[in-house]
Amino acid sequence: MTKIFNDPAEFAEDQLEGFLDLYSDRVRGVPGGVVALRTGEPQVAVVIGGGCGHYPAFSGLVGQGFATGAVVGNIFTSPSAAQVYSVAKAANQGKGVVLTFGNYAGDNMNFGIAADRLRKEGIDTRIVVVTDDVASSEIKEQRRGIAGDFSVFKVLGAAAAAGLELDQVEKAGKEANNATHTIGVALSGCTMPGVDTPLFTVPEDHAGLGLGIHGEPGIRDMPMPTAYELAELMVSTLLKDLPVGSSKRVAPILNGLGTSKYEELFILWGSISKLLKQAGFEVIDAEVGELVTSLDMGGVSLTLMCLDDELETYWSADAYTPAYRKQRDPLKNINRFAEESSNELLDAETIPESTEAARRLAVQVLRGLENMAQVLHENETKLGQIDAVAGDGDHGRGMVKGINAALKAAQTGYSNGGGAGWILQTAGRNWAERAGGTSGVLWGAALEAAGHSLTDNKVVYEDQDYVAAIHAFSSAILELGGASIGDKTLVDAMLPFVETISKSIANGTALPIAWSMSAEVATNKAAQTEALVPKRGRARPLAEKSVGTPDAGATSFALLATGLSKLSTPQNLTSTTKGATESYV
Amino acid sequence: MTKIFNDPAEFAEDQLEGFLDLYSDRVRGVPGGVVALRTGEPQVAVVIGGGCGHYPAFSGLVGQGFATGAVVGNIFTSPSAAQVYSVAKAANQGKGVVLTFGNYAGDNMNFGIAADRLRKEGIDTRIVVVTDDVASSEIKEQRRGIAGDFSVFKVLGAAAAAGLELDQVEKAGKEANNATHTIGVALSGCTMPGVDTPLFTVPEDHAGLGLGIHGEPGIRDMPMPTAYELAELMVSTLLKDLPVGSSKRVAPILNGLGTSKYEELFILWGSISKLLKQAGFEVIDAEVGELVTSLDMGGVSLTLMCLDDELETYWSADAYTPAYRKQRDPLKNINRFAEESSNELLDAETIPESTEAARRLAVQVLRGLENMAQVLHENETKLGQIDAVAGDGDHGRGMVKGINAALKAAQTGYSNGGGAGWILQTAGRNWAERAGGTSGVLWGAALEAAGHSLTDNKVVYEDQDYVAAIHAFSSAILELGGASIGDKTLVDAMLPFVETISKSIANGTALPIAWSMSAEVATNKAAQTEALVPKRGRARPLAEKSVGTPDAGATSFALLATGLSKLSTPQNLTSTTKGATESYV
Repeated sequence: MTKIFNDPAEFAEDQLEGFLDLYSDRVRGVPGGVVALRTGEPQVAVVIGGGCGHYPAFSGLVGQGFATGAVVGNIFTSPSAAQVYSVAKAANQGKGVVLTFGNYAGDNMNFGIAADRLRKEGIDTRIVVVTDDVASSEIKEQRRGIAGDFSVFKVLGAAAAAGLELDQVEKAGKEANNATHTIGVALSGCTMPGVDTPLFTVPEDHAGLGLGIHGEPGIRDMPMPTAYELAELMVSTLLKDLPVGSSKRVAPILNGLGTSKYEELFILWGSISKLLKQAGFEVIDAEVGELVTSLDMGGVSLTLMCLDDELETYWSADAYTPAYRKQRDPLKNINRFAEESSNELLDAETIPESTEAARRLAVQVLRGLENMAQVLHENETKLGQIDAVAGDGDHGRGMVKGINAALKAAQTGYSNGGGAGWILQTAGRNWAERAGGTSGVLWGAALEAAGHSLTDNKVVYEDQDYVAAIHAFSSAILELGGASIGDKTLVDAMLPFVETISKSIANGTALPIAWSMSAEVATNKAAQTEALVPKRGRARPLAEKSVGTPDAGATSFALLATGLSKLSTPQNLTSTTKGATESYV
Repeated sequence: MTKIFNDPAEFAEDQLEGFLDLYSDRVRGVPGGVVALRTGEPQVAVVIGGGCGHYPAFSGLVGQGFATGAVVGNIFTSPSAAQVYSVAKAANQGKGVVLTFGNYAGDNMNFGIAADRLRKEGIDTRIVVVTDDVASSEIKEQRRGIAGDFSVFKVLGAAAAAGLELDQVEKAGKEANNATHTIGVALSGCTMPGVDTPLFTVPEDHAGLGLGIHGEPGIRDMPMPTAYELAELMVSTLLKDLPVGSSKRVAPILNGLGTSKYEELFILWGSISKLLKQAGFEVIDAEVGELVTSLDMGGVSLTLMCLDDELETYWSADAYTPAYRKQRDPLKNINRFAEESSNELLDAETIPESTEAARRLAVQVLRGLENMAQVLHENETKLGQIDAVAGDGDHGRGMVKGINAALKAAQTGYSNGGGAGWILQTAGRNWAERAGGTSGVLWGAALEAAGHSLTDNKVVYEDQDYVAAIHAFSSAILELGGASIGDKTLVDAMLPFVETISKSIANGTALPIAWSMSAEVATNKAAQTEALVPKRGRARPLAEKSVGTPDAGATSFALLATGLSKLSTPQNLTSTTKGATESYV
């Protein structure tokens, strides 16, 4: 939602004022918009424009190698003829003017009136209308202009900067438009400043094919595809639209509308790039980012401009504007020979020999890890919600990622002959490596320490070995995390667990019973953390918000301890009391 | 909402794969993250990192003059120690490594473990922790790292690129961190991929002061301020936090979290820039944009780094990375003398002489414009909603902007002695100029034409003069817009209106009665447009969606015609039939 403004009615003017203040070293404000400060010989003026709400379009594209001036209308509204005239007059360097804009009724009229007025004054003025939106019409000339604006403006700007005369610049722009095809997908609507409801909505879990860049809804709603499906849909739609004999070299733009963020664009780009290559296309200088936005609208568009040599030259040329900067110089000295190669995150490790007992215990460890995985999958959302109250909400996901990696590594380790100690070590390393985060490093180190403590060279494993492993687990967390009882961390559940189990075993209680008792203590202690004010970790800055919610780390520890206690059956309860291998880790 | 992905659990890996494909000419992927391809002499390696979901942080900042490598963890999650180690090993050029990251428990642990491992292998490794978030703690060392990450990384990267030795690079980074202070404001939460609900919500019409960049909510909610108030709050909070004797030269970052868009940032920057100047600060190379995001979170943060000469040098230095590019060269030849000056959008115009009758009629014109303003203000939202069904939703706002400008210009024109014709002309010009858009250019040209038709040199104005003016109004719209009956535009209401009123007057009907009848016809015809399929304008691509909703332009025409008919009273009804000046235009 658009929330930051003073007077919604002055949104366009106010944003331009801030923009001009910021870039006063390279552009200047004129009535109606912005022109670039000059840097070289006079050139054909390329004046772009449209409503505001599309930044970087249009003012952000004024500068060397790109637009000479930009006319800035109200939000999503064509500028007036007077504004176009004013900016064009200021941008004109005596070599003629190209007015260029997306194909909308208001823009056609206002730019048209301004062109007439400029021509009457003897300023040779040409018009290049952008018509790239394949969803808006079968007929090229009737299409709307959306993110293909960027492609056409770029070619015009580079052609003008290269010193071409007006006729040639206009011709290059028209060729660029003919070669440019865009398909967009809306994922959510945008809101105008001062308005509470979006201009349109996309049904939940749906996508609207054929978006407009003024908050116009899509032409057809469809269930939300995966990134790969979305890539396939967009690529195939565009490829079908390309005229027969189109160049196989393409300049793609994957454009974010505002709320679909960079990481999402990169995921999508990964698929688009593959699909284009599969279809035999060569990608030239792809642009992935927010280039023609629509306030806070969710969605993306894919543009392909089919390149001949001339278009490729202008597409690839240097430019330097507030929002778009491309320079060949900084990249030209790249030294590809200086790179060392390394493709493995962890060194390959040799699995140590293990005894029969260690192998049997490994089976129990695997059962335990499977149980942990089940508990964490079941509680992922809940743990995330608890964490989100005063933290970043990643605890559930982090733990799931960790246990998945740990379990997989342990299974591999077991298949390769590892004993309980070894598979716990590799489980811990993989947990830490794949999960990252605080919980990742702590659980990873703790499991690894427990594995080291067990070792794989014993002929029999007894309760005291498990208690030692539990202590090793706990010590690793205390050392690494540095937290104490009362800090509102997993230590508040873990230490009482360790204490209870140690005492119970020392008193002769059977391990499964001791474990169950200890898990119950951990559960209570974890619940009691809700009263605490956090002293460490991410929750600390939000200490007050955290009160009333238990600590996520303590909660997951208690859940896991409880889950493991349920593995216990009368059978293995008996066997465990004999120090057999059917036990828990 | 984060919507584009394949498997939410592989979000971090998938986005990195797309990123690496896109920028394979300048970076290379290594297990755990990204390193820059080398371009020059060996330098100190600056390895930044953290979770993903913050792009451009962290991978987008790898390149010349900035980071040597970036470790990329899972979403909002510290990378693992193994990842940090792997990236640092690949980034190391034999001159030592600086590991730098925001102050979070997980990052401290994982980067710390990796640093130990690197040192054990003989790689001199330093750590610079960023602690810039003034809302998170009174104690500098305990603060979280948020957008100030960017400032500190930039200084470290530039210092390393300048060839400084490890000690000096580390020192510059620590000084940068000491000089860096950030305050953030959350406006809406962000969602993790695959999750339906945001990590937190900000109450409607509120802002959360003291946001975190991992979707942590703000520390205190407050009613949503205006842009100026928000600027004041952020600037005053930071200025209070600056140590006594801090430098008056500051490098500001106004950072958007993801959904607060560029135009909003520029509006905010306009106020921040003024406030900093008022407080005696000199702004050096301010950055306004999305630099450290938080998926699709709404909100902003303001960072100030207080500069000494050394920090200024590194802050201002060139850099060239996928997401951040700054080059002095393209700007150095700017020629400030080449600019022509022009500060007026419209030429000053001389108001023509007017007769007494024209002056009396002008009063009626003003009454009519006031009435139109009232009608449009009352119906702004409704018109916007109608337009949004298949268009861009700007019709209500555009009409209001237009009538406001028209009325103001007419009032000024009248005060300066203008007659009815003149004030209609100036009203029309100002409508077109200020409103822009399709409706702006059409209504503006139509009113101007009506004004020209009336002229201000008559001693009496009779019904036929008004009919002529109405015809002039209508002709201007037909010529400019090129629409016909049935195209689903305002012509569908206007032409029947013009036809009815012409015939009625010809038949001797009094103007107010004729007007009322015609307004009724226009209202019916406007309503009937709901059955039409649009043939022109923005609604055309969405033709099917448009069926069932009347045309916004026809609707506003009918509303205005109806509103003007209600100005009629028995008194002026009588006088009007005598051709007196109390009539409608």
